[in-house]
Amino acid sequence: MNRRMILRILSYVLLIEAVAMLPPLILSLFFKEFAAAQAFLITIALCFGFCGVLMLFSPRRSSLYAMEGYVITALSWIVISVFGALPFVFSGFVPNFFDALFETVSGFTTTGATILNDIEALPKSLLYWRSFTHWLGGMGVLVFLLAIVSLSGGKGNLFYLMRAESPGYDVGKMTPQLKKTAKMLYIIYIILTLVQIVILICGGMPAFDSFCIAFGTAGTGGFGVTNNGLAAYNPFCQGVCTVFMLLFGVNFSLYYLLIVRQFKEVLKNEELWAYLGIFFLAAFLISFNTLPAMQNFGEAFHHAAFQAASIMTTTGFNTVDFNVWPVFSKTILVLLMFIGASAGSTGGGIKVSRLVIACKSLRREMHKIIHPRSVRLIRLNGKSLDERVVSGVSIFLFAYLMLLCVSLLLVSLDNFSFETNFTSVVSCLSNIGPGLDAVGPTSNYSAYSNFSKVILTADMLFGRLEIFPLLILFLPHVWKRNASQK
Amino acid sequence: MNRRMILRILSYVLLIEAVAMLPPLILSLFFKEFAAAQAFLITIALCFGFCGVLMLFSPRRSSLYAMEGYVITALSWIVISVFGALPFVFSGFVPNFFDALFETVSGFTTTGATILNDIEALPKSLLYWRSFTHWLGGMGVLVFLLAIVSLSGGKGNLFYLMRAESPGYDVGKMTPQLKKTAKMLYIIYIILTLVQIVILICGGMPAFDSFCIAFGTAGTGGFGVTNNGLAAYNPFCQGVCTVFMLLFGVNFSLYYLLIVRQFKEVLKNEELWAYLGIFFLAAFLISFNTLPAMQNFGEAFHHAAFQAASIMTTTGFNTVDFNVWPVFSKTILVLLMFIGASAGSTGGGIKVSRLVIACKSLRREMHKIIHPRSVRLIRLNGKSLDERVVSGVSIFLFAYLMLLCVSLLLVSLDNFSFETNFTSVVSCLSNIGPGLDAVGPTSNYSAYSNFSKVILTADMLFGRLEIFPLLILFLPHVWKRNASQK
Repeated sequence: MNRRMILRILSYVLLIEAVAMLPPLILSLFFKEFAAAQAFLITIALCFGFCGVLMLFSPRRSSLYAMEGYVITALSWIVISVFGALPFVFSGFVPNFFDALFETVSGFTTTGATILNDIEALPKSLLYWRSFTHWLGGMGVLVFLLAIVSLSGGKGNLFYLMRAESPGYDVGKMTPQLKKTAKMLYIIYIILTLVQIVILICGGMPAFDSFCIAFGTAGTGGFGVTNNGLAAYNPFCQGVCTVFMLLFGVNFSLYYLLIVRQFKEVLKNEELWAYLGIFFLAAFLISFNTLPAMQNFGEAFHHAAFQAASIMTTTGFNTVDFNVWPVFSKTILVLLMFIGASAGSTGGGIKVSRLVIACKSLRREMHKIIHPRSVRLIRLNGKSLDERVVSGVSIFLFAYLMLLCVSLLLVSLDNFSFETNFTSVVSCLSNIGPGLDAVGPTSNYSAYSNFSKVILTADMLFGRLEIFPLLILFLPHVWKRNASQK
Repeated sequence: MNRRMILRILSYVLLIEAVAMLPPLILSLFFKEFAAAQAFLITIALCFGFCGVLMLFSPRRSSLYAMEGYVITALSWIVISVFGALPFVFSGFVPNFFDALFETVSGFTTTGATILNDIEALPKSLLYWRSFTHWLGGMGVLVFLLAIVSLSGGKGNLFYLMRAESPGYDVGKMTPQLKKTAKMLYIIYIILTLVQIVILICGGMPAFDSFCIAFGTAGTGGFGVTNNGLAAYNPFCQGVCTVFMLLFGVNFSLYYLLIVRQFKEVLKNEELWAYLGIFFLAAFLISFNTLPAMQNFGEAFHHAAFQAASIMTTTGFNTVDFNVWPVFSKTILVLLMFIGASAGSTGGGIKVSRLVIACKSLRREMHKIIHPRSVRLIRLNGKSLDERVVSGVSIFLFAYLMLLCVSLLLVSLDNFSFETNFTSVVSCLSNIGPGLDAVGPTSNYSAYSNFSKVILTADMLFGRLEIFPLLILFLPHVWKRNASQK
């Protein structure tokens, strides 16, 4: 294990976090929120301090193995979450460390589940930080690092870092150079976010809110800045968010293909069509099902589309309390929670492409019953898939379900209803935010015990990093002094 | 497609059903239940009549392909269910055909879910028939056919029939001859059932009840003959049922190995140990969790073990109303609903062996992250598994979950609670019987609409036949005139 390289990257991550805290620090001074200002100052100092200590260990070799890429990713996310929680604790607004950690992990993992009963009581600088964690976590802090630093010295295979942090069964390298790919991802990300901010401001949303809501949309996070969520804004702004949630749930490599004018490649992307198909089907079914409680079909579709986009892209914003919807609509939302967004997007969940691959394996199995001796490869987007990818998909699904079962069991000790526990675990694993019943859109996670909060916090991290990077931390082999790869 | 062979086997199946209705017919005459007697007589006449018509088509070749084995199995189960429902309808005790079909499919598939509000209002002959469907469906009507008839003329590969009807990832041929294997299965089955009947009668249970309860235990069905379920009997009889439920949830080939004195093979069966381990863990956790509401640990363990065995073996008997248990215990029961019993037993669910194989694939995937170039086969019971078996397991899991999602969505149109719908669908798919909330042990499925009842009826069949035999009936290719296998 290349421990020194791990420490080096962790120090960079702390540096990024310290820099990311400068804007909220300035905001806190601007708004005269001195408790928050002090908290940010102390945290920034701590980040720099630890960064300095870690910098003392310089790596002897810069090459990384797959396992080390996974370990670095998992540790980076743990470190960034722990330090990111400190401003909440130091400022006194979230005194319980478990609550602050839950809130921060919920931010970085773009979950958007909150333990705050009164969001508006928080100073603006903390609200900004809370929303900005979505933005940074959405595309990934290591991807950001890869975009700005030339780490690779020699054979160092940093692709493992990107693979471990980016969601999806297979991370496409958009360009041959890793740094260029990471840069391109962030450029598309920044442009889309800026466009949304401008449209929201033009649509009448206050500038501060526009920034925070755009961060929450871009990262498919879901933290708002009001107690009413997105119900506080006009239907135009809600509609803009529907569209942008959907845009951020699309594989970013498709935007790159648009830029380089490979329109045909975009059109034959099966995940895109499945993603849009599922979204429209869900939105229409919910529209018809909720129609009796709405004024007209337009209003029903407006809210149905918003909620379907919000849950499917795993953002978690809401314009209405879908907890009071008919059970059919609520069941659709629960199923969307599992499905999630596209691979290579900022969204979470199982991902549409994995389900497409699983459906194709099922179809192949049926075909094999009829033609037992046939040999067929599974094709996606016109290309044959390696059988390892296909089996990787099913193992991921199984691991996801095992985590779901274990978490559900542990969380059920708090004796909340089955519906509450089930949806809260799925919501955290898929990085969505709200669930149903006691964790519905008008409630929050504050009633859970610290033990359950830790379980749900872990679930958010497992979900964001797609299980394996975090899971291998539990293998004793990884921690052995001379652990290396054969 | 060998249509004539399909019709021939269907005619045999109708013959078996007609003969199986003779004991309840005699019972109905003995107890002077003339409405039931008339109903059984008419049904028996219909069975013979249709059997006679089908016999007119004699098969030109007796060989079968895998697909035909699946089609025969699915059609046999549909035919036997439709005819089995007629006595309920004709006697006027269950006038709605959908209700009668639900009840009969619930019987044959050994689910044990009921739509009857007052079970004791049924005549004894119908109660006997209801319980006997569990017994016949538990080991399988085609396995019974294979045990008594020498069908194979020439190359006819009837193993496909057995494979399609017997649960588990891989049906072990206990002996080289298929007929001998089927016979051996039924001999073990009959002996275990008789032993249970004798012990129950000695334990103070009325003779009629002993027969019915033993049929329900042997098939891991769950129909009782009282409105209180198993709470109507003394703790000794309940304990006997706990032990026998567990015995019938074990792979029957292990009993064969005991008979031929291969004790070592039994001891190294990983599924057996996992099955017992999960059972005891669940029973102990529930005991501690429900202890405050019980008189002492002994009583708590008595009920916890009974309920855990009942749900895990997918029987569905109950001695207490576990709907009022703490959520932790209820969550354990829900997880046991998925797990199910052993392959090659009369129980349903996903089966312990499939989960053992899936856990081993997960472990292998973790190992591959650390040692990317390693090649490892998955071993079960000391033998390497074919990769096709491993991928078959994950495809089965996916198909199971897809069915669960689709059914959940359709059933949710009735607007019962999420907990009700979720547990009723899982309960039917895993052939258990009771669920939670509105379908808890003290309630039943009568409140669902006819549409939902049809969905749940289909789920029970899908679960019992392990999805694929029924699923391929939906492929248009199967119904083409000249459909054959390449």
